Amino acid sequence: MTRKAVKGQSTRERIIQQSAPLFNQHGYAGTSMSALMTASGLEKGGIYRHFPNKQALAAAAFDFAWKTVSTSRLHGLDECTGALEKLLLLIRNFVEMTPGTVQGGCPLLNTAVDSDDGDPVLRARARKALTQWRSRIAQIIQKGQSDGELSQNIDAREVTVVIVASLEGAVMIGRLEKSRDALQAVGRHLEQYVRSLQA
Amino acid sequence: MTRKAVKGQSTRERIIQQSAPLFNQHGYAGTSMSALMTASGLEKGGIYRHFPNKQALAAAAFDFAWKTVSTSRLHGLDECTGALEKLLLLIRNFVEMTPGTVQGGCPLLNTAVDSDDGDPVLRARARKALTQWRSRIAQIIQKGQSDGELSQNIDAREVTVVIVASLEGAVMIGRLEKSRDALQAVGRHLEQYVRSLQA
Repeated sequence: MTRKAVKGQSTRERIIQQSAPLFNQHGYAGTSMSALMTASGLEKGGIYRHFPNKQALAAAAFDFAWKTVSTSRLHGLDECTGALEKLLLLIRNFVEMTPGTVQGGCPLLNTAVDSDDGDPVLRARARKALTQWRSRIAQIIQKGQSDGELSQNIDAREVTVVIVASLEGAVMIGRLEKSRDALQAVGRHLEQYVRSLQA
Repeated sequence: MTRKAVKGQSTRERIIQQSAPLFNQHGYAGTSMSALMTASGLEKGGIYRHFPNKQALAAAAFDFAWKTVSTSRLHGLDECTGALEKLLLLIRNFVEMTPGTVQGGCPLLNTAVDSDDGDPVLRARARKALTQWRSRIAQIIQKGQSDGELSQNIDAREVTVVIVASLEGAVMIGRLEKSRDALQAVGRHLEQYVRSLQA
């Protein structure tokens, strides 16, 4: 890359990084072009040099936010040996996650609700992120089953849905109640639940 | 009430009813005054005659949407005799609820995410709705405990959080996946879970 291309790349990344908390907090419609300009310190033309439109920037911002949050949720996973240990770590990481890794909380929840009826590009990104997250958990469960660690009588897909749904719902409750109580209660429940899946 | 007051009242209710699906689908920032005018068939002044501002209309629309959804969720509850039967009905009502009772899905989830950083009036309404819903479920569990139907070793508040969180999270997943699979999976799990709480 030429020096100019490198600079362009880093400006692009900086715009994404600075836009992500805005979109994550205020949603797509609630994030104005002028707020994006203030956050990035750029004129409209400066932003449009890197993104064809607001939609493209919102999609890149979602990917950035999701990557940040995922990294925190998966932290330490490769060092765990068994399926149970991995599932417990995933739950613990989620429950104890430093709030505000990307300001505004879980980008999946935000984007799912925000883009429901609206932006199809954003919805597709969020859906892909959810599918990846679900696959990751389901694979751990299936591996646990084939290793004889987890019961054969469970459906990996269903267990995954229960874990993801209760964690995300707890985030919603915690957000309204401005408290981590719901997330911690759900974490305790899921820990017990996951232990009950042992063969 | 005079005839004029009655007519004013019914216009007010009509505006609320017609605005509720808009706010529920598009959020507070995403619902423009012009969309509200189109939906109600009124000029701006006609709306402002009944509501001091958009915020007041959004709050009334939330209350309407929540009441509609709650009625459906609590349907048949008084005819159930025991705590277990009541909890199973609540779960079934939630899972099987006709989608689009108020277009846009669960107003609690929508408003929690939408008003997170934004409108404090709306957030307060959503929080109150959540508190009422949680109390209703917790009371059923506590009654079940004092009747000896449910185990003494459970924490009614925690069980309530698990139920509400997993249902709401399943709504979020279902919305992204445009499918009722997640809600049905969570329903099956919760049914088993609630049965396991028997004394």
